[in-house]
Amino acid sequence: MRFIEAAQLDDIALGAAVLGTGGGGDPYIGKLMAQYSIRKCGPVRMVEVEELDDDALIACSAMMGAPTVMVEKIPSGAEIVTAFKALESFLGRKLFATMSAEAGGLNSSTPFSVAAELGIPLVDADLMGRAFPEIQMVTATLYGIAATPMSMADEKGNTCILNTCNNRWTETFARTIAIDMGCSAFIGLFVMTGKQVKEAAVAGTITKVESIGKTIRAAHVSHVDPVEAVRVATNGHLIWKGKIADLNRRTETGFARGTALIDGVDEYEGRRLAIDFQNEFLIAREGDRTIASTPDLITILDSEAGNAITTESLRYGYRVTVLGIPCDPRWRTAGGIELAGPRYFGYDIEYSPIESLAAED
Amino acid sequence: MRFIEAAQLDDIALGAAVLGTGGGGDPYIGKLMAQYSIRKCGPVRMVEVEELDDDALIACSAMMGAPTVMVEKIPSGAEIVTAFKALESFLGRKLFATMSAEAGGLNSSTPFSVAAELGIPLVDADLMGRAFPEIQMVTATLYGIAATPMSMADEKGNTCILNTCNNRWTETFARTIAIDMGCSAFIGLFVMTGKQVKEAAVAGTITKVESIGKTIRAAHVSHVDPVEAVRVATNGHLIWKGKIADLNRRTETGFARGTALIDGVDEYEGRRLAIDFQNEFLIAREGDRTIASTPDLITILDSEAGNAITTESLRYGYRVTVLGIPCDPRWRTAGGIELAGPRYFGYDIEYSPIESLAAED
Repeated sequence: MRFIEAAQLDDIALGAAVLGTGGGGDPYIGKLMAQYSIRKCGPVRMVEVEELDDDALIACSAMMGAPTVMVEKIPSGAEIVTAFKALESFLGRKLFATMSAEAGGLNSSTPFSVAAELGIPLVDADLMGRAFPEIQMVTATLYGIAATPMSMADEKGNTCILNTCNNRWTETFARTIAIDMGCSAFIGLFVMTGKQVKEAAVAGTITKVESIGKTIRAAHVSHVDPVEAVRVATNGHLIWKGKIADLNRRTETGFARGTALIDGVDEYEGRRLAIDFQNEFLIAREGDRTIASTPDLITILDSEAGNAITTESLRYGYRVTVLGIPCDPRWRTAGGIELAGPRYFGYDIEYSPIESLAAED
Repeated sequence: MRFIEAAQLDDIALGAAVLGTGGGGDPYIGKLMAQYSIRKCGPVRMVEVEELDDDALIACSAMMGAPTVMVEKIPSGAEIVTAFKALESFLGRKLFATMSAEAGGLNSSTPFSVAAELGIPLVDADLMGRAFPEIQMVTATLYGIAATPMSMADEKGNTCILNTCNNRWTETFARTIAIDMGCSAFIGLFVMTGKQVKEAAVAGTITKVESIGKTIRAAHVSHVDPVEAVRVATNGHLIWKGKIADLNRRTETGFARGTALIDGVDEYEGRRLAIDFQNEFLIAREGDRTIASTPDLITILDSEAGNAITTESLRYGYRVTVLGIPCDPRWRTAGGIELAGPRYFGYDIEYSPIESLAAED
């Protein structure tokens, strides 16, 4: 157990963007929400997974929608608390703690807002070890844990409680409701016991993203190459260096979808990488050859600063370095690949771990 | 107070189709559901509005979606009870009785299923005195009564509780959720006290539709013109006789929309009427001239049998008689016309009561 102060959110947001693989929303928005709440209500008590009582009740807090919209519709911080309280009210009991559903971007920080405002602990864990675009894509699904009851709230005062027959249906309903909520909604979901969290969650995620953030900041101070520092901190593989040559981006069915083309520089000169995304970067391809693919993490870093770049911040001309980072081992099981592998997203590609793909290069 | 047996549902369904103005779903489906439940669980105790305790809690039960889909996806009867119980569970208390939200079609009968299965009374009233396509189009809205908390259920086991900032938003969310539920959903909504029902509901609706149904059946037996019998029973105006010449029908944004063209016969020979619908018949026009318009009722009867024809049952060649029937006086207030008048549906037409329009003819 330790306390997280507002200042620590800087490192958490910086590191979360790396595991966010371009998605999970702009970490800056989540950081502002969390810091505002912590300054107002005091530091957040962060507990480790093993400290949880087996019968403690925990639920995830998050924002859901198109990151391209979220950056233009900044929340007050009250809405995510409304969603969490709607869930408690439906359950008819208080929740012991909140937790991140995804390690990436915005949603590493948003639960701090709930924890601070309600004076409850935050669990140092998440349900992905990265960010993914759809609700059912969590380790909890692999353990048969239901996403519902799930609460949703918007800034206008609309709320909703879903109970679905499986997590894929949760995604279907929640996505269209999020669109009606203006492509940006506040959610509470995955009510779990401490026992379930111990079994199904990716433990230590917040500490991990904080340490990645610290690494980037330390590299800036000591004039070390921040990109190499991130690669080492994430156990990643450098798979491309280049500059953004073209960008095709659209907001559809509640997602930010598109492709980024990256012309190689240095040892990649004369070659072109294509990265497809649906909120998160999914597949990195050079012609017909897959360089990296979901469920492994594909992260685009600013080549100078080492910061991760989100899909909505991608711009023509950016100098970038692309990392491929091994995912949590549970994503590499048959169930994990079925849930979030290339075929789920419509790519007729067999998944190969980034370690093998990088070795071929 | 009186008991309603399964056999009485025949008249109720027959009469409800007349006030259904082409929409509200095929009354046959609702009748089957209600009769099945009554045969299984016993007759339904129907109470008059004035018999209600002021603090009794009542909620409407209904089906929602595209009637064109509902006829192809016949419910088991359990789903509408699931929706009602989800509402009770959210409220944390039992509801005293259920009620129809609309007089028309399917939804005059569906609440009988809930009343029979749960052994609770049904209130002899509705919230429209007709059918309308959208949730906020009820007299309750004119009295500031919220549609939410509202429950929704589908046949797969998905349920949802909505709480919205106004009844227009309820419609927005519920419509997209109903689409995700396969264009056909079971709902519980408009939780009201007995005092609110007395003030805001259209009293005696079930008795009224039952008596219209009886009139049609009696006309068949005594060889009286059933169309004229319905006209008298509804205080309606005969506005057209003809045969269906063309039909344009599409299922979009969760509604059955389109236009029926009716070539005149007898005194209407050589003339053509166009009737636009969105689940319900909205506007009857001859060229630029409005013959009848929402919120008054436009009902298409089978010229031989006197039965009302729903939008999804319209067929080329049908011999039909069109009635214009005055709506509940509350629909003719400024608030009522704003909520369900021609301009709401996108027609640049000033509403004139059917009595005035018929007198011009």
